[in-house]
Amino acid sequence: MPHMTAATTELDRAMMRLALELAHKAAALGEVPVGAVVYNGDVVLAEAYNRREIDSDPTAHAEMIALRAAAATMGSWRLEGCSIAVTLEPCPMCAGALVNARVKRLVYGAADPKMGSVDTLHRLCTDARFNHRVEVIAGVLAEESAEVLRAFFRVRR
Amino acid sequence: MPHMTAATTELDRAMMRLALELAHKAAALGEVPVGAVVYNGDVVLAEAYNRREIDSDPTAHAEMIALRAAAATMGSWRLEGCSIAVTLEPCPMCAGALVNARVKRLVYGAADPKMGSVDTLHRLCTDARFNHRVEVIAGVLAEESAEVLRAFFRVRR
Repeated sequence: MPHMTAATTELDRAMMRLALELAHKAAALGEVPVGAVVYNGDVVLAEAYNRREIDSDPTAHAEMIALRAAAATMGSWRLEGCSIAVTLEPCPMCAGALVNARVKRLVYGAADPKMGSVDTLHRLCTDARFNHRVEVIAGVLAEESAEVLRAFFRVRR
Repeated sequence: MPHMTAATTELDRAMMRLALELAHKAAALGEVPVGAVVYNGDVVLAEAYNRREIDSDPTAHAEMIALRAAAATMGSWRLEGCSIAVTLEPCPMCAGALVNARVKRLVYGAADPKMGSVDTLHRLCTDARFNHRVEVIAGVLAEESAEVLRAFFRVRR
């Protein structure tokens, strides 16, 4: 069962639509299409999409790039009070990074049966043994988020 | 119980000694002292230490910086065949990054009761549901690795 601990707002949906646009940009570049937006209230701090192939960087998932850019904007590694919208359920690396960065809320779209580590395979964002927990809102624009990925792999297989 | 699936070699211990030197450099800069070295055979591909405060970057753990630098050196995000020596058991972010980067072997020093996600709180490097597993060798120069951290926090508390 996905987490349902917090309310989705119209702002979250607007941010997810922006994340979906970013995912489409990734697809156009031949990257697995995942997009992410970090925001504080209605201020967008960072936008990013997956760049693993282009950057030859195993850490260049959308969430990681967005977290690093948001921290650079804030001048601090602590992203307390910030939310992140991401089209796909974060992998263990990205879920762990959200905890490390003290992100307040994670809003994600499609579940990831292969690597999802927020609800599907592990629950890293809400592990009470860690020094920070992230509120999780799952399934926001899930169908659109999954369709971007399906369309990408349909063409390439 | 820590993993004991693979043999520690004299080369691993030499790389851990280098990682310990890097941890000491971090301490001198006021950073939590953790060091990491990525190597392929006896070739060092990248050396790094924790730079979270200096860089204001929540992702700037020693392992992450070393993985990114090694991938840049290799010109590929795939670090197949590579080993990493790190003085402290990786957190969920770094353990996930080792899986994403297809690292072959992880050699670590001290266990981390707070965030350790290789043996202590989670077993992310050896989860059979992920598309890659990392061989884990725990406890190499563990006492020296723990002592660098203890000395750092002794002075600061």
